[in-house]
Amino acid sequence: MTVSFADRANAIRALAMDAVEAANSGHPGMPMGMADVATVLFERFLKFDPADPHWADRDRFVLSAGHGSMLLYALLYLSGYARPTLDDIRNFRQVGSPCAGHPENFELAGVECTTGPLGQGVAMAVGMAIAERHLNAAFGDALVDHRTWVIAGDGCLMEGINHEAIGLAGHLKLGRLIVLWDDNNITIDGPTHLSTSEDIPARYAATGWHVVECDGHDEASIASALEAARADDRPSLVRCRTVIGKGAPTKAGTSGSHGSPLGAEEIACAREALGWPYPAFEIPDRVREAWLATGQRAAEPHAGWKERLATHSDRAEFARRMAGDLPADFSLDDYVAGLLAEPKKVATRKASEMALEAINAGVPETIGGSADLTGSNNTKTKALQPLTAEDYSGRYLYYGIREFGMAAAMNGMALHGGVIPYGGTFLVFSDYARPAIRLSALQHARVAYVMTHDSIGLGEDGPTHQPIEHLMSLRLIPNLDVYRPCDTVETAECWALALERKDGPSLLALSRQNLPQLRTEAAENRCARGAYRLRSAETGRQVVLIASGSEVETAVQARDMLEAQGIGADVVSMPCWERFDAQPQSYRDDVLPPGVLRVSIEAGTTMGWERYTGSEGLRFGLDRFGASGPALRLFEHFGLTAAAIVPQILERLKA
Amino acid sequence: MTVSFADRANAIRALAMDAVEAANSGHPGMPMGMADVATVLFERFLKFDPADPHWADRDRFVLSAGHGSMLLYALLYLSGYARPTLDDIRNFRQVGSPCAGHPENFELAGVECTTGPLGQGVAMAVGMAIAERHLNAAFGDALVDHRTWVIAGDGCLMEGINHEAIGLAGHLKLGRLIVLWDDNNITIDGPTHLSTSEDIPARYAATGWHVVECDGHDEASIASALEAARADDRPSLVRCRTVIGKGAPTKAGTSGSHGSPLGAEEIACAREALGWPYPAFEIPDRVREAWLATGQRAAEPHAGWKERLATHSDRAEFARRMAGDLPADFSLDDYVAGLLAEPKKVATRKASEMALEAINAGVPETIGGSADLTGSNNTKTKALQPLTAEDYSGRYLYYGIREFGMAAAMNGMALHGGVIPYGGTFLVFSDYARPAIRLSALQHARVAYVMTHDSIGLGEDGPTHQPIEHLMSLRLIPNLDVYRPCDTVETAECWALALERKDGPSLLALSRQNLPQLRTEAAENRCARGAYRLRSAETGRQVVLIASGSEVETAVQARDMLEAQGIGADVVSMPCWERFDAQPQSYRDDVLPPGVLRVSIEAGTTMGWERYTGSEGLRFGLDRFGASGPALRLFEHFGLTAAAIVPQILERLKA
Repeated sequence: MTVSFADRANAIRALAMDAVEAANSGHPGMPMGMADVATVLFERFLKFDPADPHWADRDRFVLSAGHGSMLLYALLYLSGYARPTLDDIRNFRQVGSPCAGHPENFELAGVECTTGPLGQGVAMAVGMAIAERHLNAAFGDALVDHRTWVIAGDGCLMEGINHEAIGLAGHLKLGRLIVLWDDNNITIDGPTHLSTSEDIPARYAATGWHVVECDGHDEASIASALEAARADDRPSLVRCRTVIGKGAPTKAGTSGSHGSPLGAEEIACAREALGWPYPAFEIPDRVREAWLATGQRAAEPHAGWKERLATHSDRAEFARRMAGDLPADFSLDDYVAGLLAEPKKVATRKASEMALEAINAGVPETIGGSADLTGSNNTKTKALQPLTAEDYSGRYLYYGIREFGMAAAMNGMALHGGVIPYGGTFLVFSDYARPAIRLSALQHARVAYVMTHDSIGLGEDGPTHQPIEHLMSLRLIPNLDVYRPCDTVETAECWALALERKDGPSLLALSRQNLPQLRTEAAENRCARGAYRLRSAETGRQVVLIASGSEVETAVQARDMLEAQGIGADVVSMPCWERFDAQPQSYRDDVLPPGVLRVSIEAGTTMGWERYTGSEGLRFGLDRFGASGPALRLFEHFGLTAAAIVPQILERLKA
Repeated sequence: MTVSFADRANAIRALAMDAVEAANSGHPGMPMGMADVATVLFERFLKFDPADPHWADRDRFVLSAGHGSMLLYALLYLSGYARPTLDDIRNFRQVGSPCAGHPENFELAGVECTTGPLGQGVAMAVGMAIAERHLNAAFGDALVDHRTWVIAGDGCLMEGINHEAIGLAGHLKLGRLIVLWDDNNITIDGPTHLSTSEDIPARYAATGWHVVECDGHDEASIASALEAARADDRPSLVRCRTVIGKGAPTKAGTSGSHGSPLGAEEIACAREALGWPYPAFEIPDRVREAWLATGQRAAEPHAGWKERLATHSDRAEFARRMAGDLPADFSLDDYVAGLLAEPKKVATRKASEMALEAINAGVPETIGGSADLTGSNNTKTKALQPLTAEDYSGRYLYYGIREFGMAAAMNGMALHGGVIPYGGTFLVFSDYARPAIRLSALQHARVAYVMTHDSIGLGEDGPTHQPIEHLMSLRLIPNLDVYRPCDTVETAECWALALERKDGPSLLALSRQNLPQLRTEAAENRCARGAYRLRSAETGRQVVLIASGSEVETAVQARDMLEAQGIGADVVSMPCWERFDAQPQSYRDDVLPPGVLRVSIEAGTTMGWERYTGSEGLRFGLDRFGASGPALRLFEHFGLTAAAIVPQILERLKA
């Protein structure tokens, strides 16, 4: 018994209406509007295998318009993924259900990335498409030959990041990236003409994209547009003319169907209008079977792929990379031994480049890059060649002046797997990338951020370029490891920790200015504990000086001045708060003993340092914007020198 | 004696080369490349009066490519502004000189806004152009009839915010906005073709812009392009084909001239090539006089304008608005009295709308808006009409899904003067706007941010939409006042403080969920002190509960439970850290007495609260990402209820 196209698509519409109604919150309009397009995509184009959602050569499907999450949950359920179950969908938007308000990659296999913050899905898809071409260059068509498909709404196209993302994709000629634009003329505030007059196809064409259109409710029209998109060697935008909330008799075509339950009466009428007489959450067997058949389409190609993998000469290397394991023989120990033998006074951004020389030589899956600050971020090591439209095997990306786009693309690369992306900009411009850094953390994406020029120590560029609040505000992001190493050895240790971390992002804050090598031993990775005693008091300990990065040197100078006056002082280097907070109380008490004056020194905001100094301690930093001038002059100007700090410590000790 | 065009332009080139060389840092390439265009602009088009840099009807000139600051300093000096002096320029990039690395509006009249963070200059210019048309609609051509000119580089055009800004400008048909694009094919990393393949004119045309081109080194070509731009009623992009570092014999046309001193030898050769035989920092009198004449071009029109103002029926109102004074009779007292008479249990976002009804009725210079969340942010009051291309007199902007563009446009409006912008999005998406929020603070721009859905209390939308670290990370930004009111009365008080503040931005974090009215008196604006005792212990005080926003209700519930067990507890409402920290020690000690258990409750990160609780206190909050579920269920799930908190307080008291 054949099942009509309308029935197959209406199964999605019904589940979306019902789940949103049951949750009494959610977005029915988009799933109902895009049900036809998604049905064609899944039935005829998308390469996926619900029996093995992590199949390396599957197509990636990104629901950039994440508020339409019920579209994705319905597709996964119908096509036969183990989760979500129908019960999961019944519990849409409830604590404990994997069917969260917005799709979360850490909740459900089949959700390739976490979306909802608009525009980022498209930008992550660009990263996935880059990773695909790069791995294809390394392993060939036999193992890597897939596409990245995106459903995006007007919001995703209006956000600034869209410009960065499509600019990068057009430049890199990512022909395997296809964006299906849900062109329904509606945003939350009402018709799109309230806020935009843009000719979107012309804009995409101007950026090197292929554009094709279809009637988003006509099976043949959709299929023919997707065929054209697949055939073109440029990235494609498929303009799908749709009606939001299609099927809802009074709310279709209006913003009223966007983000609220339709209501029992509207749903009843919609069932009638759609010819879908079944009760809530009930999918007739014949419809389910048709969908399950769709989910089995790739079983054969998948089996063929497995055969090719089994006999492929690079199968072990491919498996290693896709598993995210570092090369078994990789280590920075020799490099660090060299530093101990011959100490170097360099900026930590240079120390990072030195570490990266060893890393990039030993870890072939890294892909470096910078948002147009290559020479300043020191992200390009000598052997790296550019990854370009002409040669995807390159391992260095000139991201252009696109901090946010870079960060989101790195998320996409990391989530695709098989590569480890790192990318740089100035620390102050972490603000531009912040929404994507947050998503790195939420999504457990293995991304390394290289943020240089990490304080007023950058000097003359002035307050627009001097981070003040940035270090602390990044530490606030859950699941992000923020490192601020003080010298070459710590920089290598922090890089090692960042690389080893498989389940989340790391960020290195690095100096512009040269710093002495303070570490003279490296029997263990001391940064792994987040903070440690770098110098011990020689006389009776009265003070513990806690610092990070460039201010560790200042702390050591202050300590020497205090010791010279008979006042014992430890210096604690604290490159990573997150790691220190995870240590046992006994270790933390040993490093920061109670009852001793604790003093923090960091060229950034002092708010937050009370955690380690206590209210009674002293906090030296900068709670105002910086200024333009030579770096040394600025540290003097703002009182961040040992000479300025020591008298205040002495005064406090007297009191 | 006539002075050649080349000499007039070379005066800029020479000052730029010399100042960067003296500072041993800076960006000579852009000023040298755009010297010719800037000379034509200042000599023939820009309406400005160095004798009165704040003239309300001056054209606004924005150097969006702020790294080319020496272009602007040279123009201001040459055309006769009181500052910078030649000595100021000699001290370029030194502490104390107003000639900072990047242009700072708070250092120099004539610098309309602070630039350097790329892309934001163009976006602020959009806001200035909106303010101009809006004030023109209110006061007519006689008083308001000027243009906004921008110089932008490839970086400004590549950043995502460019898309948001030009989309808004094209939609609003801001024909008085003209962007001069320094098309030199070079970015820091090298030729633009490393990272972009975009057809920029086509993209601008797709967004409703007029595009015209010129040879950026040919006086007549430049003038004719600017004429065409001025004549068109759409916003214009003028593509100026230039050579970066024009005049530097070996470095011109390369990224080598972008961001480093040219070096003594290159400068000597450039002087020769340019036919500029004068010593460093020396401008021949005849050249200076030609430039001073340029600076006097507007003296007559300015005098005419003053005459028109003197006899204009609305002159007092115009002067008031441009001075940024609120209407003398404006007050929220009656509105607050009504709340006391008839308490309301509403979400603070709704309380904000109620306050705005009173504000918008009494303060005609407000311009509201939202980044496509009007109904959720509650930013549109009943009487406000949309500001559109057809009617600039409207006071409500549908910004579209452009959080960053909205924030930057509001900066531009505020800096233009005559209007007070406020705009909304979800608090979690403050991340998207963060680079502009930082610039609001740095620039002392009077902008009010309305950030709703301020915690897990937003419920089902889940972790992508639930702010965790945002409140604290915004508090870290210097000079930004962050408010989180707990009820209708506090919301009104915070709005009053935000409006009264002339020298910087304010941000209101507002709940989605309903909250009881806890304030029963309003003899004074208690939020003005940042924190205050909302409830006093009835039995002997053993605990102080500190909370903000929606958690003040939780604190009151916890207090009642403690008091019922004979444990005295204060409740301190702390809507604004910045204001509380500015109070005298005696006040702070009274509100947060030492030696008592202090407990913070806030549905966000706990890091930072040690400042008020001390290490010994308790901190209740959320140091992980949220979850998708109904709000009440989430507060239970994460232990943020009085029932979950009180036992932990009792245990601590026992210990």
